[in-house]
Amino acid sequence: MVDLRSDNVAGAAPQIVEAVVRASTGTARSYGADEWTARLQTAFSELFEHDCVVQPTLTGTATNALALSLLVPAWGAVCCSGVAHIHDSECGAGEMFTGGAKLIPLGHEEGRLRPAVLERYLAKAAGAGTAVAPPKVLSLTEATECGTLYNVDEVAELAAVARGFGLRVHMDGARFANAVAALGCTPAELTWRSGVDVLSFGATKNGALAAEAVVAFDPALAEALRYRARKAGQVLSKMRFVSAQLDAYVADGLWLNLAGHANKMAARLAGGMRSIDGIALLYPVDINEIFCRVDEVLSSRLDAANVGFFDRGEGEIRMVTAFSNTADEMDEIINILHSA
Amino acid sequence: MVDLRSDNVAGAAPQIVEAVVRASTGTARSYGADEWTARLQTAFSELFEHDCVVQPTLTGTATNALALSLLVPAWGAVCCSGVAHIHDSECGAGEMFTGGAKLIPLGHEEGRLRPAVLERYLAKAAGAGTAVAPPKVLSLTEATECGTLYNVDEVAELAAVARGFGLRVHMDGARFANAVAALGCTPAELTWRSGVDVLSFGATKNGALAAEAVVAFDPALAEALRYRARKAGQVLSKMRFVSAQLDAYVADGLWLNLAGHANKMAARLAGGMRSIDGIALLYPVDINEIFCRVDEVLSSRLDAANVGFFDRGEGEIRMVTAFSNTADEMDEIINILHSA
Amino acid sequence: MVDLRSDNVAGAAPQIVEAVVRASTGTARSYGADEWTARLQTAFSELFEHDCVVQPTLTGTATNALALSLLVPAWGAVCCSGVAHIHDSECGAGEMFTGGAKLIPLGHEEGRLRPAVLERYLAKAAGAGTAVAPPKVLSLTEATECGTLYNVDEVAELAAVARGFGLRVHMDGARFANAVAALGCTPAELTWRSGVDVLSFGATKNGALAAEAVVAFDPALAEALRYRARKAGQVLSKMRFVSAQLDAYVADGLWLNLAGHANKMAARLAGGMRSIDGIALLYPVDINEIFCRVDEVLSSRLDAANVGFFDRGEGEIRMVTAFSNTADEMDEIINILHSA
Amino acid sequence: MVDLRSDNVAGAAPQIVEAVVRASTGTARSYGADEWTARLQTAFSELFEHDCVVQPTLTGTATNALALSLLVPAWGAVCCSGVAHIHDSECGAGEMFTGGAKLIPLGHEEGRLRPAVLERYLAKAAGAGTAVAPPKVLSLTEATECGTLYNVDEVAELAAVARGFGLRVHMDGARFANAVAALGCTPAELTWRSGVDVLSFGATKNGALAAEAVVAFDPALAEALRYRARKAGQVLSKMRFVSAQLDAYVADGLWLNLAGHANKMAARLAGGMRSIDGIALLYPVDINEIFCRVDEVLSSRLDAANVGFFDRGEGEIRMVTAFSNTADEMDEIINILHSA
Repeated sequence: MVDLRSDNVAGAAPQIVEAVVRASTGTARSYGADEWTARLQTAFSELFEHDCVVQPTLTGTATNALALSLLVPAWGAVCCSGVAHIHDSECGAGEMFTGGAKLIPLGHEEGRLRPAVLERYLAKAAGAGTAVAPPKVLSLTEATECGTLYNVDEVAELAAVARGFGLRVHMDGARFANAVAALGCTPAELTWRSGVDVLSFGATKNGALAAEAVVAFDPALAEALRYRARKAGQVLSKMRFVSAQLDAYVADGLWLNLAGHANKMAARLAGGMRSIDGIALLYPVDINEIFCRVDEVLSSRLDAANVGFFDRGEGEIRMVTAFSNTADEMDEIINILHSA
Repeated sequence: MVDLRSDNVAGAAPQIVEAVVRASTGTARSYGADEWTARLQTAFSELFEHDCVVQPTLTGTATNALALSLLVPAWGAVCCSGVAHIHDSECGAGEMFTGGAKLIPLGHEEGRLRPAVLERYLAKAAGAGTAVAPPKVLSLTEATECGTLYNVDEVAELAAVARGFGLRVHMDGARFANAVAALGCTPAELTWRSGVDVLSFGATKNGALAAEAVVAFDPALAEALRYRARKAGQVLSKMRFVSAQLDAYVADGLWLNLAGHANKMAARLAGGMRSIDGIALLYPVDINEIFCRVDEVLSSRLDAANVGFFDRGEGEIRMVTAFSNTADEMDEIINILHSA
Repeated sequence: MVDLRSDNVAGAAPQIVEAVVRASTGTARSYGADEWTARLQTAFSELFEHDCVVQPTLTGTATNALALSLLVPAWGAVCCSGVAHIHDSECGAGEMFTGGAKLIPLGHEEGRLRPAVLERYLAKAAGAGTAVAPPKVLSLTEATECGTLYNVDEVAELAAVARGFGLRVHMDGARFANAVAALGCTPAELTWRSGVDVLSFGATKNGALAAEAVVAFDPALAEALRYRARKAGQVLSKMRFVSAQLDAYVADGLWLNLAGHANKMAARLAGGMRSIDGIALLYPVDINEIFCRVDEVLSSRLDAANVGFFDRGEGEIRMVTAFSNTADEMDEIINILHSA
Repeated sequence: MVDLRSDNVAGAAPQIVEAVVRASTGTARSYGADEWTARLQTAFSELFEHDCVVQPTLTGTATNALALSLLVPAWGAVCCSGVAHIHDSECGAGEMFTGGAKLIPLGHEEGRLRPAVLERYLAKAAGAGTAVAPPKVLSLTEATECGTLYNVDEVAELAAVARGFGLRVHMDGARFANAVAALGCTPAELTWRSGVDVLSFGATKNGALAAEAVVAFDPALAEALRYRARKAGQVLSKMRFVSAQLDAYVADGLWLNLAGHANKMAARLAGGMRSIDGIALLYPVDINEIFCRVDEVLSSRLDAANVGFFDRGEGEIRMVTAFSNTADEMDEIINILHSA
């Protein structure tokens, strides 16, 4: 079976598992006062070419909700796309962590917000008085929930519109590694240099066991971040076990190697699919996700061959490749589809 | 150095690390639909001799706050001891997760609430009208924050008082294993058979990397528990990595062996301390925690020998033994103290 | 000047002002233990032909948010129309009072939700797992935000769909009096007999100074309602001053007389407008609200004549009549428009 | 019957009722855009000799909870006395409005916090790390819940301690008028000149029907205050009805006349009580509240004569005088007690 239901069905990269095993002996100070966590601050500040406040976290949902809670007051609102994970797929965590802020879903193209749409909403809300929760944050997902990318200029343009109305900018980077690997930009270019204040930095989907981080580029957010993480139950007493994962993840470019490989697998698979009748790709395959429409013959074929995919209903499916997939697996799927 | 600052400075038990390593290859369904998590439901139901709803969680703070949020409405109150971890040491997580419930600290003896004190408060609150948030939950910590134990009858008596006033009962079992090992009772006797509705089941302090669980004995709480855990960002996408820890932890009595050993280490150390001038034990050493008053000569000695302890100020210290400590280490500390 | 910007720009009905003046001397028990408030329970139970729990409240926003908080858990969601006041115009009060529940705006026709749309969403959400906050409440606005009405059967049909999926039903009755007066039904028919669990009963827009009520038809909600109202700062120490308004409001059919008059004024004005070129009514004028498109000549005319209306942008305006408007005023506006 | 159960059992001052009646005709812009509310900004800025942000509110509980929510982040804590109304008697409104901040009750003398006690707690909390919600606000009640007063210097000293640790300062002035009248100071001296950031300004207990205000001395709080009030359901659509009360209340010194009279009544009654065996005053009678211990003979006497008082249990009672009480009533009570 090749299992492409999501990149979180994969296990963990050996380098990261080994880091956890290495960290499992000896004693260490608890609640983040350990060496691994200390190292993270330096490693991330180097990676992002900027003084960062890094808070290791345990799930993507908590990471996003914490990040939003740093930027939006309880009486404010967060603008995002209509397919944003924070709005659609996190069970209202954002509303909970922020104390009741509103999430405002806006129209999008292939997962990407467009500056004109954002600007129109912000202009309207600015005239609405206290009846309408005032937008205080723009949240972008990079890569988007449709597996597409904003390029650096697009991020910067959206952030500039947002900042013009006094908003701060959050980036949901659950697949940040895939985005950076695909764009070939620096982490700095895609974030603070483009106007991003706080990044949800994902690692779990890209080879970690369970490790994410809130990365704040504004040191004034440090105190709130430390306390909010603790209050939200995101601070491990044995914090080293998540910090060690992140340490290994960003060391020697592992994160980009893993993500680059996953991206390549998706490109290979999508390339093969393009020539097959009965398959229509729905969006550009910018990273490691393929959204397509497949006819019933083909989807039964995949089922019969035990190829795992996510069924979105109405003939649409999603396939996500991971660090652990191989070129042979991709070719095997293409063969299965061809033989249909 | 022997490091007894807390049991969470220890690493992880090899059996649990191995379970994680084993789980790290292959694919598995995400967000708790995996086999490891499925197995947990059976394993815990057998362990507790009762149909349980088990939700793996990541930190003790989140576990307690989630557990409370199942039992207390946002307009209610939780009665606990004045030294309860939920009140004193979790940065207000309970207030956040419950949507603003109040925590009511009550007087205690060596960490233990007493039925008469509880009853007096509940009777008073019952007459206070809507000005006072109505008590809806009793939260007991077993073992207590002073390292002491309620015996089974004491838990049952407190729970009965609470239930008489319409409250439900939560048990903070961050060191539940140490309690069960010390009391020699069954997990069932200490919980639902004594009137406990929801248990915070801790594993991290006793050899896991990061694994806890909310265990609800009332199946009607299942839906709220599943959704609240997700909304609170406590549901790993690769859930198997926490479930595998819990699986290994409760398999073949590992959890009680680890805790029993830690308890024995504390008993050995405390036994040695009793004969030393300049040390006064503050509470019975029922589990793996020693609270004592030491004079300055002795504490400097410990410092000089690199023995880690937690300084509570005003001459009081706490030492906590873990699964990983050895009898030799305990004897070494006793020798250091004697030579002072 | 005739001021039709909203019905809340009007003053208060003399009968209600007099009731407040009468209540202003002598002493009375505080926080709702007074005679006026006691009388309300009986008066509303008679009015609704059902044992009611009535909680006087101070603003429409608080009334709706309290009502929702009785019905939806913090981890659930509320389905409503895309123009629902609770979603669009209450600054996220619902999110705050519920502790972070999500509001799900659905498509509508002239302000009215349609059963098929509701059913489709509920069916989809039922299969979404814990990633999506589960719908637990349907909120209907009667009369709708477009000034249209559900008839009794339509309310019952929507409520039946909702109940089929396990939801409970809230009705935002900010203009409930206008709806009952227009439909000629009984309050019971439009609410609990049609499946409504909790009603936001408005009086301020219809002649009160500041008086609303949460009316719960399920006595099991009483305790939560009493405490939530207190905790939300909606319980006046001198409660009689709001209860006296509600007493007078429902006595001798005053509420329906006031609303019926306002409805008649809107019908008269809309009738006159229909024959005027340059005006297009956007929705049926079921109650006291007129939504229309007017050309610039006409709207300048209204401005010049100091006729107050609410400018919705893009050529659309809203006019709302109140208990205090007169037929002469309506005719005057028609004349102004005709002379344009 | 003379009813001294509380000052909120009284009706309303004629001047304030008349202001409401006068405001009840004609139309006015809604949600606070009316003339009455506009006038308040000027009136309060003059009264306090400082640019104020004034938000009219409806209940004391909402006023305090809103005020706290301006000053404390959701992850912070509020220090107050152990008998503070915000902690003891507001059903956890503060926890709700702040999104889960903790209230920390400290020891007090006759209701008054003492600088040394505050300083000790703040020093300890400063060293506690993220386990303990960090104190961010000091809340003082003036006059205190024991009917005693801080003088201006005492307020300033406490505020200075708080500010030294980075806290901001809230004053619960439910009986602010009684305090100012008794101290003979200016409102400015007792508030911002002494270091108070936000005042809960009460009027209901002193002759209004239902009118309070949040008064913020820091203009940077204006935006949050406006939105939070709306979101909390504290903004009347017909706002003029509360603003008109406050306008009348502060015009021509009415507020101080009413409060001064109530204070005088309490002083007269307490003076008479001092010579009666079987009565022991518990605290100085600084304002309009008398706390005393009475023997059973006397309390039965009061009951028999239909004199209303609040029974605090264990032989303690509270009597509160209001603007509407007369010297004859006080003398009558003294006679009743003497004849016992």
